[in-house]
Amino acid sequence: MAAVHRIALVGAGRMGAIRGRIAAASPRFDLAYLVEPRADAAGPLAAELGCRTASFEAMLADRNVAGVIVASSTDTHLDLTLAALRAGKAVFCEKPLDLEPSRLRAHAADLAAPARPLYVAFNRRFDPHLRTLKARLDAGAVGALETLHLISHDPAPPPLSFVPTSGGLFRDFTIHDFDMAGWLTGETPADVFAWAECLVDPAIGAAGDVDTARLILRYATGRLGVISNTRRSGYGYDQRVEAYGSKGALMAGNPRTSTVETWTEAGATAAPIYGGFAARYPKSYAAELDHFADILAGEAEPAAGYAASLAALALAEAAARSLRTGAPAPVEAP
Amino acid sequence: MAAVHRIALVGAGRMGAIRGRIAAASPRFDLAYLVEPRADAAGPLAAELGCRTASFEAMLADRNVAGVIVASSTDTHLDLTLAALRAGKAVFCEKPLDLEPSRLRAHAADLAAPARPLYVAFNRRFDPHLRTLKARLDAGAVGALETLHLISHDPAPPPLSFVPTSGGLFRDFTIHDFDMAGWLTGETPADVFAWAECLVDPAIGAAGDVDTARLILRYATGRLGVISNTRRSGYGYDQRVEAYGSKGALMAGNPRTSTVETWTEAGATAAPIYGGFAARYPKSYAAELDHFADILAGEAEPAAGYAASLAALALAEAAARSLRTGAPAPVEAP
Amino acid sequence: MAAVHRIALVGAGRMGAIRGRIAAASPRFDLAYLVEPRADAAGPLAAELGCRTASFEAMLADRNVAGVIVASSTDTHLDLTLAALRAGKAVFCEKPLDLEPSRLRAHAADLAAPARPLYVAFNRRFDPHLRTLKARLDAGAVGALETLHLISHDPAPPPLSFVPTSGGLFRDFTIHDFDMAGWLTGETPADVFAWAECLVDPAIGAAGDVDTARLILRYATGRLGVISNTRRSGYGYDQRVEAYGSKGALMAGNPRTSTVETWTEAGATAAPIYGGFAARYPKSYAAELDHFADILAGEAEPAAGYAASLAALALAEAAARSLRTGAPAPVEAP
Amino acid sequence: MAAVHRIALVGAGRMGAIRGRIAAASPRFDLAYLVEPRADAAGPLAAELGCRTASFEAMLADRNVAGVIVASSTDTHLDLTLAALRAGKAVFCEKPLDLEPSRLRAHAADLAAPARPLYVAFNRRFDPHLRTLKARLDAGAVGALETLHLISHDPAPPPLSFVPTSGGLFRDFTIHDFDMAGWLTGETPADVFAWAECLVDPAIGAAGDVDTARLILRYATGRLGVISNTRRSGYGYDQRVEAYGSKGALMAGNPRTSTVETWTEAGATAAPIYGGFAARYPKSYAAELDHFADILAGEAEPAAGYAASLAALALAEAAARSLRTGAPAPVEAP
Repeated sequence: MAAVHRIALVGAGRMGAIRGRIAAASPRFDLAYLVEPRADAAGPLAAELGCRTASFEAMLADRNVAGVIVASSTDTHLDLTLAALRAGKAVFCEKPLDLEPSRLRAHAADLAAPARPLYVAFNRRFDPHLRTLKARLDAGAVGALETLHLISHDPAPPPLSFVPTSGGLFRDFTIHDFDMAGWLTGETPADVFAWAECLVDPAIGAAGDVDTARLILRYATGRLGVISNTRRSGYGYDQRVEAYGSKGALMAGNPRTSTVETWTEAGATAAPIYGGFAARYPKSYAAELDHFADILAGEAEPAAGYAASLAALALAEAAARSLRTGAPAPVEAP
Repeated sequence: MAAVHRIALVGAGRMGAIRGRIAAASPRFDLAYLVEPRADAAGPLAAELGCRTASFEAMLADRNVAGVIVASSTDTHLDLTLAALRAGKAVFCEKPLDLEPSRLRAHAADLAAPARPLYVAFNRRFDPHLRTLKARLDAGAVGALETLHLISHDPAPPPLSFVPTSGGLFRDFTIHDFDMAGWLTGETPADVFAWAECLVDPAIGAAGDVDTARLILRYATGRLGVISNTRRSGYGYDQRVEAYGSKGALMAGNPRTSTVETWTEAGATAAPIYGGFAARYPKSYAAELDHFADILAGEAEPAAGYAASLAALALAEAAARSLRTGAPAPVEAP
Repeated sequence: MAAVHRIALVGAGRMGAIRGRIAAASPRFDLAYLVEPRADAAGPLAAELGCRTASFEAMLADRNVAGVIVASSTDTHLDLTLAALRAGKAVFCEKPLDLEPSRLRAHAADLAAPARPLYVAFNRRFDPHLRTLKARLDAGAVGALETLHLISHDPAPPPLSFVPTSGGLFRDFTIHDFDMAGWLTGETPADVFAWAECLVDPAIGAAGDVDTARLILRYATGRLGVISNTRRSGYGYDQRVEAYGSKGALMAGNPRTSTVETWTEAGATAAPIYGGFAARYPKSYAAELDHFADILAGEAEPAAGYAASLAALALAEAAARSLRTGAPAPVEAP
Repeated sequence: MAAVHRIALVGAGRMGAIRGRIAAASPRFDLAYLVEPRADAAGPLAAELGCRTASFEAMLADRNVAGVIVASSTDTHLDLTLAALRAGKAVFCEKPLDLEPSRLRAHAADLAAPARPLYVAFNRRFDPHLRTLKARLDAGAVGALETLHLISHDPAPPPLSFVPTSGGLFRDFTIHDFDMAGWLTGETPADVFAWAECLVDPAIGAAGDVDTARLILRYATGRLGVISNTRRSGYGYDQRVEAYGSKGALMAGNPRTSTVETWTEAGATAAPIYGGFAARYPKSYAAELDHFADILAGEAEPAAGYAASLAALALAEAAARSLRTGAPAPVEAP
C-alpha cells in the first residue's frame, strides 16, 4: 500500500486551485490545509477540496504535514518557502522562487542544499511531449544538438494591472524558455542578446515593459539558441521546441483541441490549438505533483530547485541588460 | 455541494479495473462494493479502489446503492442488468448488453422503458474528438451528410481463446462501428452488405471467425456508409471517422502519442498512434462515468440503452447473414 | 543526339489541347499535324502548337508520321486506333479505348498483339505520388498487401449533356479506380459489389446515371478493395490511395496548391487541394508522353493497352451488373 | 501571336544549364547563343540547347539579341552586365550582381536607372508557395506583420574550394533571406545582430567562414525578424517562412517529394523534403524567365535589380560587421 503524504496548499488563486484539485484527487496525498488570508477566496476552495483552512503558522505547527505547496503571490514565494523549509517541510514552490537573484543568493545556504527537498515548478519539464523530445535528443536520434529554437507565444496579454509587478517579460514569461534551454542543453549560455519591442499594446510600454521579443543564446560549445516570444499571437497558446542536431531535427509541435479536420473548398482546417496554459499543460501539472509525491516518499530528487531558479533568473537578468545596453550580455555563472 | 452517489462495481477484469479506478477517483461517486466471484481478482482490486467486496445479492440488498456498473463477462451482462434493475438500481452496463437480439427482445418490457435508467457503454460516443465531429456535422458545417467511412483497425488480434466466445467479428468488434453509424446518421440502414476474410491468422478462421472485413450500409435516404475492419493493422489502433457532406467533409483522425516529429533524410516521422483502446479512449471512459453520475442525479437520460443495443446488434446480425448468403441483407427494424 | 519522332494529334478538345501542348514543347517530338474536323477548333490550336491541320487520311499517308495521339471523342477512339495501327502508326489513345467490351473483343486480333505499339492513357499510373506508393508497396515496405481503399471524388459533376454519352459512372469515372486496383494488386478481382445512388443532382438520375458510389472488390487471394466515388465533393478533386499491408499502410494523399498554412484562432488552414484533373495530374500527362517517346524509340513496352482496357471495362460491367441485380457480380476473365 | 525574343546565355555552369534548358523549351524565346570560354563545357550544352556558341563580343554585336542571361561566375557578373546594358541589351543576371557594395555604388548611374531593364535573379520571389504567402500577407489575412522567421538550411556544405571565393555565408547564402525579408516587409531594417559559428566542418572555419548562424533584424517600425541558417541540416533543403501578424500567422512549409506516408508502429513517415535548390525551386526558375520575357515585351518592370541587390548586400555587410564587432550593426541606407 502506497504511502499517503499529508500536505498543505498555500494560495487560493488560479495556480492554487489547479494544484489543489490535483492534490485532492490524488490517492497519494492527504491535502489537509488551505492557507489563504483572503477569507472569501479561502472558504469556497477549501470546501471544494475538502480540507480545512488554517493560518500559515498553524499549518506549519502540524507535525504530520510533510510538504507545502507554495502557490501564493510571487512576492511571498521566497519567505514562505524559507519558513516552510525551516519548519521541516518539503516545499513545492511555483516558479519563480523569487524575481531577484541577489535575494536568492543571500539565502544560498538554506536553498542550495536545503534541509528538506525543494522543488520549483518549471512545469514544462514534465510535459509529455517535451519529455519525448528530450528523451530522443538524449538518445542521439538526431546526433549532437547544435541549435535550438524555443517558441512561446501567448494568445493574449495579461491584465495590465499585472504588468508592473510581473518582473517584466523576461523574468515573468521568457523564464520558462530560459529553463527549457538549460534543461535541453544541460549548459549555461555564455552570452545572450535580446531585442524586444512593444507592438501589442502601448499600455504595456507605458508600464515599462515590452511584449514582443527575440533573443539569441550563445554557448561556449558553439551552440546557438533562439527564443521567440509574444504576448499576443492571434492563434492561441503556441508552445513549440525545435532542436536541430547534426543528423536531423526534433520538432515538438502544439497539441490541438481535437483531431477533427474540416475539408472545404477553402482548404483543410485543423482544430485550434489550446487557448492557454491551464488547458495546454494539465498533464505536466499532474506529473509534477506525482513528482512531489515521489520526493516525499524519498524516491526522487527534485528535478529543479535553487540552482535551476538562479540559472533561469541569471539569463533573464542578462537579457534585460542586453536590451538596456543594446549589446550582448554575458550570463553570470550560477 | 454536488450529490455523491453510492455505486457498486461488478467485475474485476480489464474493463472493471478501468471503470473502478475512474469511479474511485471521482468525487461524484462513493464506490462502495466490488462484486467479483474470483477472490484472487477481487481482493487486490478492492484494496486498490478502497471498497468492500460483496456478493451480488448482498450488494443489491444495500438500499443506499443507487447504481451498478456491470463489467463482468459478456454472457452475464443481461441477467445481472435485469436483476439490478429489478432491485431498483440504475445500471451502467458494458457493451454488449447481450449477443442475442432474441434474448434482448424477450426482455423488451424490462429494458426498453426500464424502472431505473440503463446506460449501455458505447464509449466512442463520449470520445471528445468524435463528439467534435458530430457537433460540427449537426451544425451543418459540411452540409447534408451523404456518405460515411468508419475505420476500426485493431493493432493485433485478441487471444485465440477469446475468439469462440466473442460472438464473431461483427458482434464483438464491428458493433462499435454499427453504433457509431447510428449515432452519426440518426438512421437505421435499410440493408447491409459484407465481405470478410481471414487474412491475419488462419487459426481465427479455424475457430470459425474472420479477421478482415469491408461492409457497405445503405440507407433509405440514399446515404451510403463503409466500414473498414481488421484485427491487425501493423501500425497501431486506428480509429477514424470520415463524414462526407454536400459541402465538404469532416475527418476525425487518430490522436498521436506525442506531437514530436523526427526530421531526417528519410522524411518526417510523426509519433505513433496509440496501441489500444485503454490508451486511446481514457477521456471517453471518464466522460461516460460523468454521464452516469448525471443520470443518477436525474440530470441526464442515458445516451444509449436497449434501443441502441438492439439496433447495433440487428446490424451485426444482418452483416453476418450477408456474409453467409453472399448477398445484401435487410436490417431488421429495431 | 536523341531521336525526334514525328507524330500527329487527333482531336482539339480539352485533352487534345493538353496533349498537344506537351508534345509541342517536348524536344523528343515533331508534332506535325492536328486532325480535327471542326475547323473553328482546329485552326487556333494548330496555330498555337505550330503544326499543320490535315485530314485523318492525309496524315496517315505521311510515312514519316511514326505515332498518333487519339484524343477525339470517345465513340471514335476504337476506329481511329484501328485505322492508325493498320497504317503502321504507333498509337497513344485516351482512355477508354471503347466503352463496349464486346467491341474490343471483336478486334482482339488487332489489339492484343498489335502490329505497332498501342498505349491507352490510364494516366494515374504515371502520377509520381502513386508511383512512389506502388514502388514502396512492391518493395515490401508494409508487408503483403491485404486491403486497398481508392478514393476518387470529383469537385463537381460534368455538364448534364455529357451524362447520357458518358457510359455511366462506372465506365466513365470508376474506370480509373478499376485500373488503379489492377495496377496495384496485379490481380483481377473475382467479384465486385456496388451500391450507388443519385445524391448530387436529380437530373443525373433522370438521365439514367448515379453520382455517388461505394464498391467492394473481392480477390481470389482474399484481398478486399473498396472504391469510393462521388461526382461532387465540396472540397476539390480528391484522389487518394490507401494500401493496407500486413506490416503497416501506405497512404497517398492529395497534393495541395501551396504549402502555406494560415493559423488563426479558428485553427490552422492548409491550402486547398487542386480543383480538377488538369491541375492535379500535369506531371502524369508529361510522363505519359515521355513514355510514348520511349515506346517510339523502341525503349519501352506500353504500360497499358488492350488487356488493361478490357480488364478495367470488365470490372465496370460487373459493377453495373451488381448495381442492377443488387447482388455481387463475378468479374469476367479478361 | 506572342513575340519571340532573341536572347543569349552567358555561362555553361550549373545555373547556366538550368536557365538555358528553360529558355530553350520556352516558345517565348529564341535562344541564339551560348557564351562560354571553356570550349569543353560550351559545346555539349550548346548542342543540347540547339544554339550556337559565340564570343561575348560577337554575341553583343548581333543587333537582334534583345536580352542576355548572365550566369557566369560571380566575379564576372557586374562587368558583363554593364557591357551588355551598354550594348543595349536587357539583362537577366544571376544573383549577386556583385559581392562589393562599393563596386555597385560606383556604377550607380548605369545600374539604378539602366538604359535597358536589369533583372537580378532573387529566385525565391517567384516561388509559388512564397508568393501565396506574400499575397495573403498583403491582403491582411493575419493583420499587420509584426515578426518574421526565415529558415534556410542547406542539406550539405558546398565544396570547400568554393568557400574562399563565396564571399562568406552572409553574402553567399543569407543574401536570399535578406532579400526575402525586404520583399516581405517592404522595409529596410535599421540594425542587424548576428552570431555565427563553425559547427559543421572545421575546414570551413579554417577557410575563414562560418556555417551556422542566427540573426535578428530590427526595423524602425518595431518589427523583428529572425534568420536561421546552417550549411548542413541532416534532413534536406529546408526553406521556410513564418510570418506572424497581429491576428495570426502565415507559415510556408517545405514541399515534399511525394504525398505518400508510410504508417508503421514507429509512426507515420512523410516523404522527404527536396535535397537542394534545383529540385526545390524549378517553378521559380521557370517563372523568372517568363518574367524576363514579360520585361522584354515591355509588359513588366524588373521585380528586383540594382536597389534590391544593394539592399541585400548592405544587410550582409552589416551582419558581417556585427559578427566581427560582437554588437548590433546599423544597416546602411541603400
